Amino acid sequence: MSSHPQAAPLIQKMRKSSLRIAKARSIFRLKSKLARNCLSEFLGTAMLLFLGLSVSMQFILSNGVISSWFHVNFGWGLALTFSALATYQTSGGHLNPAISLLMVTLEKLPHSHLLPFIIAQLSGAIVGSIGPYYLYQDQFKHFTSLKTLAFPGLAACFTSFPELHVSNGTAFFDQIAGTGVLAFCICLCIDRRNKVPVFLQPLFFGLVLTMIGCSLSLNVGYPLNPARDLGPRLFAAYLYGIEVFSYHDWYFWIPLVAPCIGAIVGGWAYQIFIGIQIDDDHEEYELKVSN
Amino acid sequence: MSSHPQAAPLIQKMRKSSLRIAKARSIFRLKSKLARNCLSEFLGTAMLLFLGLSVSMQFILSNGVISSWFHVNFGWGLALTFSALATYQTSGGHLNPAISLLMVTLEKLPHSHLLPFIIAQLSGAIVGSIGPYYLYQDQFKHFTSLKTLAFPGLAACFTSFPELHVSNGTAFFDQIAGTGVLAFCICLCIDRRNKVPVFLQPLFFGLVLTMIGCSLSLNVGYPLNPARDLGPRLFAAYLYGIEVFSYHDWYFWIPLVAPCIGAIVGGWAYQIFIGIQIDDDHEEYELKVSN
Amino acid sequence: MSSHPQAAPLIQKMRKSSLRIAKARSIFRLKSKLARNCLSEFLGTAMLLFLGLSVSMQFILSNGVISSWFHVNFGWGLALTFSALATYQTSGGHLNPAISLLMVTLEKLPHSHLLPFIIAQLSGAIVGSIGPYYLYQDQFKHFTSLKTLAFPGLAACFTSFPELHVSNGTAFFDQIAGTGVLAFCICLCIDRRNKVPVFLQPLFFGLVLTMIGCSLSLNVGYPLNPARDLGPRLFAAYLYGIEVFSYHDWYFWIPLVAPCIGAIVGGWAYQIFIGIQIDDDHEEYELKVSN
Amino acid sequence: MSSHPQAAPLIQKMRKSSLRIAKARSIFRLKSKLARNCLSEFLGTAMLLFLGLSVSMQFILSNGVISSWFHVNFGWGLALTFSALATYQTSGGHLNPAISLLMVTLEKLPHSHLLPFIIAQLSGAIVGSIGPYYLYQDQFKHFTSLKTLAFPGLAACFTSFPELHVSNGTAFFDQIAGTGVLAFCICLCIDRRNKVPVFLQPLFFGLVLTMIGCSLSLNVGYPLNPARDLGPRLFAAYLYGIEVFSYHDWYFWIPLVAPCIGAIVGGWAYQIFIGIQIDDDHEEYELKVSN
Repeated sequence: MSSHPQAAPLIQKMRKSSLRIAKARSIFRLKSKLARNCLSEFLGTAMLLFLGLSVSMQFILSNGVISSWFHVNFGWGLALTFSALATYQTSGGHLNPAISLLMVTLEKLPHSHLLPFIIAQLSGAIVGSIGPYYLYQDQFKHFTSLKTLAFPGLAACFTSFPELHVSNGTAFFDQIAGTGVLAFCICLCIDRRNKVPVFLQPLFFGLVLTMIGCSLSLNVGYPLNPARDLGPRLFAAYLYGIEVFSYHDWYFWIPLVAPCIGAIVGGWAYQIFIGIQIDDDHEEYELKVSN
Repeated sequence: MSSHPQAAPLIQKMRKSSLRIAKARSIFRLKSKLARNCLSEFLGTAMLLFLGLSVSMQFILSNGVISSWFHVNFGWGLALTFSALATYQTSGGHLNPAISLLMVTLEKLPHSHLLPFIIAQLSGAIVGSIGPYYLYQDQFKHFTSLKTLAFPGLAACFTSFPELHVSNGTAFFDQIAGTGVLAFCICLCIDRRNKVPVFLQPLFFGLVLTMIGCSLSLNVGYPLNPARDLGPRLFAAYLYGIEVFSYHDWYFWIPLVAPCIGAIVGGWAYQIFIGIQIDDDHEEYELKVSN
Repeated sequence: MSSHPQAAPLIQKMRKSSLRIAKARSIFRLKSKLARNCLSEFLGTAMLLFLGLSVSMQFILSNGVISSWFHVNFGWGLALTFSALATYQTSGGHLNPAISLLMVTLEKLPHSHLLPFIIAQLSGAIVGSIGPYYLYQDQFKHFTSLKTLAFPGLAACFTSFPELHVSNGTAFFDQIAGTGVLAFCICLCIDRRNKVPVFLQPLFFGLVLTMIGCSLSLNVGYPLNPARDLGPRLFAAYLYGIEVFSYHDWYFWIPLVAPCIGAIVGGWAYQIFIGIQIDDDHEEYELKVSN
Repeated sequence: MSSHPQAAPLIQKMRKSSLRIAKARSIFRLKSKLARNCLSEFLGTAMLLFLGLSVSMQFILSNGVISSWFHVNFGWGLALTFSALATYQTSGGHLNPAISLLMVTLEKLPHSHLLPFIIAQLSGAIVGSIGPYYLYQDQFKHFTSLKTLAFPGLAACFTSFPELHVSNGTAFFDQIAGTGVLAFCICLCIDRRNKVPVFLQPLFFGLVLTMIGCSLSLNVGYPLNPARDLGPRLFAAYLYGIEVFSYHDWYFWIPLVAPCIGAIVGGWAYQIFIGIQIDDDHEEYELKVSN
């Protein structure tokens, strides 16, 4: 900046550039680590739902004209990537009560933090559901003025509903399987022995979600997350009534319970069948490098 | 190169290979840092618009036959990736007056540089709009010979127009939200504490834009950038008349003002709710590594 | 965690967090390295088939409504990425008898391990085929109730069948070519001289599979893997009868034999034409860095 | 491997595992560096054409049923990624006479190597065109039996033909622009000052090609490469006659000449407007890291 007359003061100003943020830090930084973590989970889940539900709404409300099912899978994957990145250094980026529960069983999260985490995640999910609805309120009105769908109709913008020919038993098995794959792959990506660098892990989480959307979303969509499913369902109940819960023989409890079972099964399956079987000294056959 | 008779002189020539570029450097390198930065923002924004508008035109002019809305989202994302990469080491790759304004409020850019940056970005956007039009002029003629669309018609190749059933109030909120997400995620990616390496940051910016295109593009598209919206609108006004500005009750000012608000809200939301809450010493629960 | 009253004991508990996993390790870890490797290949192939067949089923059973051929290519690519990542540190992530055979010819796997690896892979493929069928059993019933397809019909959810106008000779050449490309690119990615870091290699394998799906899947799909083809074919024979084998003049043996030839041809082509031609001292023209 | 009875001899065998490849090296390694580089360009261009033309054929011959224009863009991108990776350490992965010419003007390739490189690339392109035709010969017959297209018809599987309403002047400008973007972005990615690691560069080249396919492929497709265009055109002339050259007022010379101009313009534009303007000492505003 030597050729600029104001260079020296400008550089000095730059050096002080953290002042304003430092002031914000002194005012807004939370003292309690648990509070910081809960804020992180609250915001991350709200961000995930805000972006993810917008993806779903753009698909449904445009009749797929400026969206497609691949947009849904890729968009939700990216939403998870950046939500996880935003919360990864603070609370670990769970954003999902089932994953938090798994982390407790793996002794990575204290028991006493589980309930605060879940409350933060569920509150975040509710708050994150409201934004997209108001953002797209003109589209909701327009869509409704053009056609009337049988229930669930536009409630499917918010939360999961099984197709009529899918039984609740299948839905239950489906959510165990889907969340099992999710938890298995998360444990896979974060296990230091598999050498995925920290900066790629949120991207890999997103790709896992995209993969599940390509493979396991035919029965009920892929909620995989009690907070992601219940939060917007509560808001949808406010909009569309209790049928949001009672539909399909009170299906709503399945994406609350099954993901918790699936996460524990999938996470521990990783530990037992893959994680602990890896040699710590890496004296395997040198398969990965030729010559 | 030992087996090649001319090896030694060739190697010497290779050693001197920077000579021609060094000569170019002595002639063309700008002395003033501000001038270099403005050139960088001018070129980067021109490149972004040249590539991005070509993406949009290929979608519209081919009737989606050799394009799709996913092409639009993915193509604009890549255009941002490589435009940001081209300007990242010089001017920081803003390419967007709203982002430059945010950087001023974060004390990362001197106040006195804001206006030159904005002028460079807007000029780049205008220049970058002209190329694709002439590149695809045969397609414009062919398309026009086949059908006549109601306004905005082919002006939508250049800039954003809301659908008739979307109110300007919604459009305003939409652009605050969209640019807020963009600025939040940019701050997220560039914050050293989140450990995204510099070489991945332009790619992540592109993925953020793709994500917004999957989720928040239903109301008005996703301009998110006053220069990207106004530059081509000026050129479109030259082609299609003043209705480009007056359409939809003078909507045009919304993508100029709302992104500036959104960028500041989103960028500071990141700093306050995420950035300053991250522990500097990283003594979090070790959630990210098992065993 | 200083502001939390239970901080000290919690931290102590965190420090001990590997206890539960350590206990699992003492119980479940297999003593024999060969057993660990076979378990790894069994699980990895089961995971690949579970996810991959779900991708194929979602495409066929939804009539492409919430899937597309790009989902199939991208989904199988991601399924390979995460299956390879899960097994990479233990058994090298072959998941394919043809690749294991190639590794024997490259002297990277002992001859005596080939048969156990193949048995593990084939068993994994059979087991991995059963899950998706039960997961999507309601969809199979629903699809069958709506329409009756000529053979192969829904058997195409499981394994490859050539189109009627594709001769078995072409199919044989096709599978040699496809698996040749796969083996060539795998050798390319794992060769240390090409500098692809270990953490990216599984992702690159997935991209190779996606690439083959974009280019070489028109004749018979792209099985490329005797275990991936035979395992689900056995299960499909249980469901749909012997025609699964006899169809198209006993085509079934082609994806068993041709991939083995293709893998050896492709892998050695890499070694002879690329690998051994790379300079070890990297004193090439400095093409890759300017100035 | 301690628990395995044959462990010691096996490990010894592993240690010797490079023997067979070492023997191949002693037989097949070319002595002359220029010969190695020409072999590399020959093989890389053949691989690019083999995979890329298969992508195009799958799109055309399946009527887009198991392909789409996004497959074409993404598939060609991946084909370039892996072809460039295969040749990057030996010859620098040009695979394109226009890029080789640019490298000569940048003094990164000796003048005397240009002609051998071009001959190798063109021969590779011809050889690489033949494989896909025979691989898909049953599909060619089947397609032809179903419908007859006006020229160019199936010749479009091999090489570029402009639409009737696109003038040759526009096509010329189009190919300068497209190859200019390609060369600009290649120089951008390989410039050490932009910090893209070597292992990501081939992937970025592929993404650049995908980006151009999303934005600049409406007029004539996106050949961008004299060898890629002429090689398969020669083979197509053998199949379909001289009209392959004479079509559209002898359009064929445009993708031979225009890319050479475009590459030099784009590559030098990068050097002059971006490369030499980057500060070597990186004392820019610290825009990329907050706090």
